Formats: sequence, structure tokens, C-alpha cells
Amino acid sequence: MFPSLATPALLLDAEVFGRNVRRGVARAVALGVGLRPHAKTVKSPELLGQVMELGARGLTVSTLGEIRTLKATAPDLMYAVPVAAGKDTPLLRAMGDDDIAVTVIIDDVANLDGIPRDPRIRVAIEIDSDGHRGGMEPTSGHLVELAERIGERSAFAGVMTHGGGSYLVEPGEVKVVAAAERQAVLDAAARLTESGIACPLVSVGSTPTFFAVDHLDGVTEARPGVYLFGDRSTRVLGACSPDQIAVSVLATVVGQAKGGTISFLDAGWSALSQDRGVPALGDDAGLGAVVDGAGDDALVVIDANQEHGFVARRGGGPTGLATGSRVAVIPNHACATAELHREIVVVSGESVLGRIERPRGW
Amino acid sequence: MFPSLATPALLLDAEVFGRNVRRGVARAVALGVGLRPHAKTVKSPELLGQVMELGARGLTVSTLGEIRTLKATAPDLMYAVPVAAGKDTPLLRAMGDDDIAVTVIIDDVANLDGIPRDPRIRVAIEIDSDGHRGGMEPTSGHLVELAERIGERSAFAGVMTHGGGSYLVEPGEVKVVAAAERQAVLDAAARLTESGIACPLVSVGSTPTFFAVDHLDGVTEARPGVYLFGDRSTRVLGACSPDQIAVSVLATVVGQAKGGTISFLDAGWSALSQDRGVPALGDDAGLGAVVDGAGDDALVVIDANQEHGFVARRGGGPTGLATGSRVAVIPNHACATAELHREIVVVSGESVLGRIERPRGW
Repeated sequence: MFPSLATPALLLDAEVFGRNVRRGVARAVALGVGLRPHAKTVKSPELLGQVMELGARGLTVSTLGEIRTLKATAPDLMYAVPVAAGKDTPLLRAMGDDDIAVTVIIDDVANLDGIPRDPRIRVAIEIDSDGHRGGMEPTSGHLVELAERIGERSAFAGVMTHGGGSYLVEPGEVKVVAAAERQAVLDAAARLTESGIACPLVSVGSTPTFFAVDHLDGVTEARPGVYLFGDRSTRVLGACSPDQIAVSVLATVVGQAKGGTISFLDAGWSALSQDRGVPALGDDAGLGAVVDGAGDDALVVIDANQEHGFVARRGGGPTGLATGSRVAVIPNHACATAELHREIVVVSGESVLGRIERPRGW
Repeated sequence: MFPSLATPALLLDAEVFGRNVRRGVARAVALGVGLRPHAKTVKSPELLGQVMELGARGLTVSTLGEIRTLKATAPDLMYAVPVAAGKDTPLLRAMGDDDIAVTVIIDDVANLDGIPRDPRIRVAIEIDSDGHRGGMEPTSGHLVELAERIGERSAFAGVMTHGGGSYLVEPGEVKVVAAAERQAVLDAAARLTESGIACPLVSVGSTPTFFAVDHLDGVTEARPGVYLFGDRSTRVLGACSPDQIAVSVLATVVGQAKGGTISFLDAGWSALSQDRGVPALGDDAGLGAVVDGAGDDALVVIDANQEHGFVARRGGGPTGLATGSRVAVIPNHACATAELHREIVVVSGESVLGRIERPRGW
């Protein structure tokens, strides 16, 4: 498998990626919402350009580095992390003199001073839809006041939330989280509108909820991200099938132990990450799964050190992996795995099409 | 704190690093062994050059990329991962035409064909001293045969082991692991010598055992690595004190939740890693600790997503971290944290001395 490549390497199947791009666009069209994919998984302007060409309204980012490298690709960005004093000047520096629009988020009036006064910056209120990270409760007594205070100094964009709780539930419950994610921003938007405050943006986002939700009536945009690559976590949550996972880590089998029931790969946590995936993958998810005829989760990277992965067959027995052969490891969490690779090798079938730099850093 | 720096950033205190360099050399001298630090934590030729200047005999590496970037700094390298068919040609490519010596390791005669026949390559047998990863048992009936087979085609270097089990025990037990690590290679070397096979190399290596062991009589070299940076894991295992930890992640406090009992940092797992440290740190080690007057583990990064860390005070109460202020986060495992940074910012007190590239990839 890809004998010309040095291992480990992050592979991206061009056809599967292209299908994922189109699938997201089609899903957004069917739901009647704009699409603003989160860029943190893919990062590459070249790859994200494919999403923009098909009509995505912009991208979501979470670092200043992503603003710098993606603003030419997507001049309408949401910077979906808090902007506090100390991050305001670097934000303006990342925006430079470019003619771009950046929506920043806030959930506390105390952070308002951290938001630069710049006509290119709009401010949205982050709503907490699942209690799992930042955001203001949709029922908060401070909601209207915060929107008013924003409006006094900046353009008020509307409301947004991230249904990150969808990663923590069983597959059958994702629909419930998705409905709650929508309801939270709708409730907040309704309260603002009733107070006479226009709320043009009603934004939700997570890959599991995007593909599970029954409808997004009243929502204006969705911000899924990891669906572009796919991984074991989103697969087990029903957001993709095995043949919709576009990324894998190519590794060489470099040794055997315990009578061939353990095989060593030259991909450790520095190539796979230490992410054990969502709870729905179970306690024995390991650090990734080797693509294998016996099923997608039959051969698991049960443990790893920095540069070795240890593969075992679920239920025991020989791994069947010959020393010197090459395998593809499906990541548990594509965001974490991709973060360790500065280069993406784009492949098609058994051919290497090229290499793409994946910009990293902040 | 370092207002000129963009956050997050990996900081290295030049004085502490320099002291760690000297401390390792002094320890090796006191133990009467050669020093061959593992380069996988530090990676930078500039920083590792300081160790070589003080008399280290060479470096240990675990990727071909490290061979390429470090062979000029340390022309005597141990490549301490299995070389299987499929990795042999890339190894020779990484060595190039340079006049260097590389010791490779093997624990199974089946892998012998993967080792290039090159006069610059010596072959050592990896011994399993703790049952935690690869290596041949020191009592194995195949030991002498493997050494003989190596000698038929390559220069036989001797034996080596990695006392990685030292990371899994309670602090009081590290000495026991250290003694077992030494004994395992000594037993193997004795069996070889008794069979008339010269065993010039008797090599051990791990930071906890290096600083805990009573003596290393009979051992010829040690290969600790992470001590150069230090972290919470090696600190709890007794291998360094808080003021011997040279690295930290500089982060900005970007928000508060739950009445200030949770503070958000702009450093998530993409800057800190997902490594929860050694078992001795406990189940509530989180993803790092914020340097704080109340003690080194009082303020913990209890959880993180890709670009946010969530800080709480152990035992509850306000974090006391003001939004917009900056903090230093001590990593659980410096190898994993450093792996996420391509740049090291070298500081001294409150001054920024410069930036060093940390080469990554394979």
C-alpha cells in the first residue's frame, strides 16, 4: 500500500473528501440553512476552497492562525472562541487590512471591552444549549441587556451555539441533543426579537447534530466541521458510514509480540493522537482501528507510546498483520489526529495525487 | 507575563534548561555511565547541542526525521525503534552519505532482514525489563542465537532496555523498577559473555530510573530524555523538583464561568495535548496545572476542547484568574505537549531571548 510513501503519513482520499464536501452542501440545502463549516479539522485553504466553491457562506475558525491562512479563501468568518482583552490586538493583527467580515462571540458583558471596535467585526451572543462549555443560558436575565450593550458599540449579529453534547451521548440520543441545540438558539432569538432587537443570525453547529436533526426551521446557518474528514467517533454516532471516512494514517508493521497476537506499528500517539474517541465507542476504543476485512473495529490500536502503536484483534488471536506490510489506521477523532500532521498526502485508490500543507500553530 | 508573545506559546526557561543539561551530565558522571539522551522530547539541534558539548556520547532517536535533523549534532545515534523490512531503505536514506554511526535495535530474528547491511550500522538486542513493550526476555533461549545471527551479518553492539514501567508505578517503587532495569540487561550481557560473545553496550534508559537508581554498576550508558524539559509526571515520580521544570505553555485567560470558579484559557488540547500524565498524578490530574502561588497542583486544567482549556481550583472556589491576564501551564507530559509546537520561545525571567524551531514529522 503506497510503497513510495514514508510512514507514518496522514492520507486523504480525494474522492471520499469530495463526496463529503458535496454531502454537506446537499444536507444544508435540504435543511434550508447556510453552511459555515468549522475549519479546525481540515485547515488547508486548498481543501476548504472546495467547500466555498460549492456555496458555503463562510468558515468557522478557532485560532488567529486560521484567520490569517483562510481569510483569502473565506472572507466571511466566525471566530468561535471568546475574545478577551489580550486577544483583541492579535485579532486585529490577524485580520490585517483585508476586506473581510469576522463574527466574534461573547457570553458575558465583562468581555465586551476585549472586542475591537472595527466596522468589519460583528458580535454574536454564544448560547449554552447543553451545559458543556461556555455560553449564556437562553433564559438568562442578562440576554437582552447583553445584546443591547453589544449594539451600542458594535454590529449585533445574533445568536449561536455549539451542540457539543452530541459527542457525549449514545447514538440514539443525538436527535434529542440536536433538537435542544436548535431550540436553545430559537428561544434566545425569540426573546431578543420580542424585545425589539433584530437577530439575523441563528447559528448551530456540530457534525452529529447536523446529520441527525429532523429539521432546522428558524435556524439560519449550521457549522459542522469534522464531517469533511470523518472518523470513528462520528461514524459510531451515525454521522457517517465507514466509506465516508476520508482520512487514515498509513503505518508500517515493524514487529510482533506474544506469538503475533500483538503487532507493532510505526505510528504511535505522535501520529494518531491520544484521543480515545467519544463514549459511544466504548472503553476499548483504543487509539484507532486498522482497516481490516473482518470489520472496521476488529483490529484496534490498543495502546501506543510516542512512536509505536500496539495492535490487537478484538476477542484475541493473531492480528494477521505481516511485519513489513502497511496498514491504514482510522482515527478516533480526526481533529486530534490531523493536528499532529503538517502534511496531508492526497490519494486516489492506490495512487498518490499530491501533498498539501496543513497550516498549524496559532 | 510576556505581553509581546502571541498565546498559546511553548516557553522554555533558558536557565532551568541549562541547569537540567548540567544535572544530567553530573548524574551520569556520578553513576559512571555514558550519557545518550533521548532526543524525542527536545528535538531541537540547537538545544541538544548543549548536551553534546558537555560530553554526551550521542543521542537516542525514534524517528527517521530525528536522524536527518540531528546527525550533524550527534554523529553517534541509537535508533531505538524496530527496523523492519519497509523501514530499512528509508533508514539508509535518512543516514545519507554522512560519516555517522547508528545503533539499531532488534528483539526477533525475523526482523534481521529489515536491518540494512551497512558498516555504519551496529545492532543491539532490545531486552524486556518490565513486560511493558517490545524486547526479548533476558532469560530467552533465543538470546545467544540472535546475537550470533546478528554477528554473522552486522556488528553486534550489545544489549539495551527501556525501563518504561517506571512511569506506571508509585514514586516509592521507581527504585525497584530501576534496579530491575539494570539487572535485566546485566543478566542478558552475562549470558552473552559466558557464550563467548562480546557485549560492549549495556544500555538502560528512562528519566525516572536514571535519577532514582542506587547505582548502575556494569551498565555502560543511560538514555533519559524528558528530564531536559521536566514535567508534572517526572516531578511526581521524584525525577525533578518544581523549579527544575523548564517548559510551560503560556496562555491568556479569555473568560469565566460559574461565578469565576471556572476560567477559560486559550490553550486547549491542541496546545497542551490530551496526556493525563502518569498514574501517580492521580485521576484528577487534568491536562496540566497552572503555576500559582498556592502550590503547583492547586489550579488544574480540568478539561479542554481543541482551543480552550477549563481551569478550576482543586477543592473548589474562585480560580482567581482575571480575564485578560496570562498564565503558565505546566504540562503533564512534556513529550506530548512539545510535539504540538513547532516553535519554542526561549525566555529568561521576564525576557524573551529568542525563538527556536522544533523540527517535527517523520
